Amino acid sequence: MPNMEKIANNLNYNENLAFDNKLINKVILHCENTDSSKLKQIIQPLHPADLADLLTFLDKNQRTYILKVLDQEQYTNVLAELDDTIIDETFEESEDAKIVQSISEMETDDAINLIETLEPDVQKNILDQVNPSIREIFQESLNYPVDSAGRRMQKEFVSMPSYWTVGQAIDHLREEADLPDDFYELFVVDPSNRPLGSVSVSRVLKSKRNVKLNDILDGSPKFVDATMDQEEVALFFEQYSLVSAGVVDIHNRLIGRITADDIVWVLQEEAEEDILRLGGVSESEMNQSIGRSTKRRFIWLFLNLLTAILASYVISLFDASIEKMVALAVLMPIVASMGGNAGTQTLTLTVRSLAIKELVKNNRKKVFLKEITISILNGFIFAILTGVAAYLWFEDLSLSIIVGAAMIINILSAGLFGFLIPYIFDKIKIDPALASSVFVTTITDVFGFLSFLGLASIYLF
Amino acid sequence: MPNMEKIANNLNYNENLAFDNKLINKVILHCENTDSSKLKQIIQPLHPADLADLLTFLDKNQRTYILKVLDQEQYTNVLAELDDTIIDETFEESEDAKIVQSISEMETDDAINLIETLEPDVQKNILDQVNPSIREIFQESLNYPVDSAGRRMQKEFVSMPSYWTVGQAIDHLREEADLPDDFYELFVVDPSNRPLGSVSVSRVLKSKRNVKLNDILDGSPKFVDATMDQEEVALFFEQYSLVSAGVVDIHNRLIGRITADDIVWVLQEEAEEDILRLGGVSESEMNQSIGRSTKRRFIWLFLNLLTAILASYVISLFDASIEKMVALAVLMPIVASMGGNAGTQTLTLTVRSLAIKELVKNNRKKVFLKEITISILNGFIFAILTGVAAYLWFEDLSLSIIVGAAMIINILSAGLFGFLIPYIFDKIKIDPALASSVFVTTITDVFGFLSFLGLASIYLF
Repeated sequence: MPNMEKIANNLNYNENLAFDNKLINKVILHCENTDSSKLKQIIQPLHPADLADLLTFLDKNQRTYILKVLDQEQYTNVLAELDDTIIDETFEESEDAKIVQSISEMETDDAINLIETLEPDVQKNILDQVNPSIREIFQESLNYPVDSAGRRMQKEFVSMPSYWTVGQAIDHLREEADLPDDFYELFVVDPSNRPLGSVSVSRVLKSKRNVKLNDILDGSPKFVDATMDQEEVALFFEQYSLVSAGVVDIHNRLIGRITADDIVWVLQEEAEEDILRLGGVSESEMNQSIGRSTKRRFIWLFLNLLTAILASYVISLFDASIEKMVALAVLMPIVASMGGNAGTQTLTLTVRSLAIKELVKNNRKKVFLKEITISILNGFIFAILTGVAAYLWFEDLSLSIIVGAAMIINILSAGLFGFLIPYIFDKIKIDPALASSVFVTTITDVFGFLSFLGLASIYLF
Repeated sequence: MPNMEKIANNLNYNENLAFDNKLINKVILHCENTDSSKLKQIIQPLHPADLADLLTFLDKNQRTYILKVLDQEQYTNVLAELDDTIIDETFEESEDAKIVQSISEMETDDAINLIETLEPDVQKNILDQVNPSIREIFQESLNYPVDSAGRRMQKEFVSMPSYWTVGQAIDHLREEADLPDDFYELFVVDPSNRPLGSVSVSRVLKSKRNVKLNDILDGSPKFVDATMDQEEVALFFEQYSLVSAGVVDIHNRLIGRITADDIVWVLQEEAEEDILRLGGVSESEMNQSIGRSTKRRFIWLFLNLLTAILASYVISLFDASIEKMVALAVLMPIVASMGGNAGTQTLTLTVRSLAIKELVKNNRKKVFLKEITISILNGFIFAILTGVAAYLWFEDLSLSIIVGAAMIINILSAGLFGFLIPYIFDKIKIDPALASSVFVTTITDVFGFLSFLGLASIYLF
C-alpha cells in the first residue's frame, strides 16, 4: 500500500493550512527570492481551496508570482476557488490564453461563478476567446437571472432511459469517458429529455444487474426550475434533506444539476448578506480596499445622518420645554434607545422569518398579533421600571408618569413598524434586510422624542 | 411504466405544500370532524418534512389528532422532521411505546437530534425504554459535546478493506441487507477500523470489477474529529466542497459520517443564531409562546435600559450647560446615533469575519488598522458635514467646531470598540454575536454624549 504514509500525513484534518503563519512566511520568503522550485515544493501538497486562501494573505506582487509559477492544472483549480475581490487583479496579471484554457476546463458552475464576477468588458474579452461550442454552454447559463438555479447548476450530469437495467447502466458508466468527476444520482429521462425520476448512486450499487432502473426510481423526485432563486433552492434542499437535485428548463427538460456542496456555499453567501445588510454594511469587505469600504459605509452613515437630523429637528421643536426642565434632555435618550432596541428585535425576527419562508400569508396575522402583544407587555413593564427609576432620580411624579407613557407608545410603535416595514419591503420586492433598520430606528427615535417631549410640553407646563 | 403518472403529478416542484392555504383549511376541517380516512388521504402523498411544517400551522388538538392517525412509519418520519418547539408537546401526547419504536428505527443523527432537545427527565424516561444495544449507540453520540460532529454524525456507513476489488465491493453491497438508505462514499479502513481513505460511489460505478479499491482511493481524504464543533465542520465542508465526510474518534477510528444535507441544516441554524443574537433576540421565536418570547426579549431590553440610564447619567453631568444652551440637547443625539451606527458596522463585520474564520491571528493587525483608517476617514467626513449642518442651523461657529470634533472622537471610538469588543469576546470564548452590540452602542452613546457635552462645557462657557 504505497499511499498509506501519504494519507497518514494528510490526516491532520483539523488544521486549515492557509492559516499557518510559518507556511505563509515561508511562501513570502520564496516569493521575494523568486525561488520557484522551493515555492512549488510547498504549494504542491496544498488543496486548491487552501492555496486560494493563502493568496489572500499575500500582496499583489507575491500573488502574481505564485500564479505564474503554477502549471495549467493547478492554475485552473485555484482560479475556481479564488476570492471575488482578487479576481479582477488576477485577470489583469495573467495571460488571456491561460485564463481561457482554465475556464474551458472547469466544471460549468465554477466557470459561470467566475465569469459572472468579471467587469463586462473583461467578460466579453474572455468569452470571445473561448471555443464557440463551450461559449454557447456558458451563454445558456448566463441567460438565466443572476443568483438563479440556472447560474448555479452544473451542466455535466448522467441521464439514462428508464428501460435500462442496472447492469446496462454500470456498463455504460464504465465505458463512457466523458462523465462528471462525481455524481450522486442517475437521472432517468424520457426520449425528449424530460425527467421521469432519479436513482441514487448507492441504490444502483445495491441492486442486482437485471433490475430495471424504472423499478428502483425515486417515486417523488425533486427537481428545481432553472429560474428559481438560489436562496429558494437552498430552502428546497434543506426542506427535503437533498444532496443533489436536477434542474429543468421551462419545457421541463433536464438541463443540469445542483449539488449540496454548492448549496453550502449559497447559504454562507446569503446568511452573510443578511447579517451584513442588517448591520449597515453592504457586503463583505475583508479584501476590499479602504477607499471602497469607506465609500460603502459612508452611504449608509449619510442616510443615518439625515434621519438623525430629523430626530434632532423634533427635539428642537420642544427647546422651550427643555430650557425649563433639563431633566427632559436627560431622560429623552432612554425612551428613544429602548424603542430602537425593541424595534430591532422585532425587525430582526421578521427579516429572518421572511428569509426562511416561515412568515407566510397563512400565519402573518398570528405573528403580527403576537408581536403587538409582546410589545404591549414589554411596553408596560418598562414603563413601570423607567417611571420608578425617573422618580427615584428626579422625585417628580408627573415627569415619571410621562416618561412611562412615552415608553409604552414608543415600544408599541417599535413592534408595529419593526414588523410592518420589512413585511412591506418584502411585498414590494425590496430585500427587507437592506433598508429596514434605518427606517425602524428613525421611526423609534422620532416617536420616542415626540411622545416624551410632546407629552411633557402638554402636561408639565 | 406504472409510476409515470404519479411522478408527473409530483413534479410541481416549486410549491411548498405546507404553505397551501386550501390544504391547511381542509386538514383543519377533517380534524374537527375527526374524519381520519379523509385526513389520511390528504396526508398520504405529503413529504414528511411538509407534513411536519403543516403541523406548526395547526393548534395543539389538531396536531395531536393527526399524529394519532399516522401509522408507525409515517409517525417516525414526521417525528424526525418536527419543529423543536412542538416536540415537548408531541411527547406528552403520544404513547411512549410509539415514540420508543420510532426513535429506535430512525437514523442515528435524526434520533440524537430529537433526543437532545428533550427535557432531562423525558429524555431519561425514553432512553430507559429503548433496547439496550441501541441505547448504547445513542449514548456514544450523546457523550460528545453539544453541537459537535459526534452529535451530528450518522453511525450507519459503509466501510471495506483496501485489498477488495470493485467487484467484491459491489457483490457485498448487493447482498448485505443492513446498509444505510443512501451513501456517497465507501470508506476504506485498516483492520483496526482506521480510515485509509474513501472512494466516491460514482468512482466505484465508473471502475471495472477487477480494479482494487486501494488503486482508486482518494489520496487526500477529508475526515473530521468527533469533537469538532458543527460550525467548524460546516466551514470544513465549504472549504473543500464536500458532500460527505467520515468522522473519527480520538483513536482515529472511523465511527460515523456526516453528509452535506446535515451541513445545510447546521448552516441555517448557525446563521439564524448569529443574526438573531446580533438583533437582541436569543433564538427563533416563531413557535414559542408569547410569555416565553416576552421574557427572553425582556432580559435584553433590561440590559439596554441599564446602559441607557448610564448614558443619561452622563448627560445629567452637563445639565448646567444644557440649561444655558438648548442647542446642545438638540445636537447630542446626532453624535450618539452616528457613533452607534458606525460601531454597528464594524461590529457586524468583525462578528461575521470571526464566525467564518476570515479574521485570524495572521491578519488581525491589518484588519484592525483598516477599521481604524476607515473610522478616521468617515469621522472627518461626517465631522465636516455635521459641522456645516450645525452652523447653518444655529449659526454658531464654536458649536459647529465642537460637534465636528465630537463626531471624530465618537466615530473613531466606534471603530475601535466595534472591533475590540467582539474580538475579545471571541478570545475568551463568549459568542461575539451575543453581547457585543449592547456593549458597543453603550460605549458610543456614552462617548458621544461625553465628548460633545464635555467639549461644549469646556470651550463654550
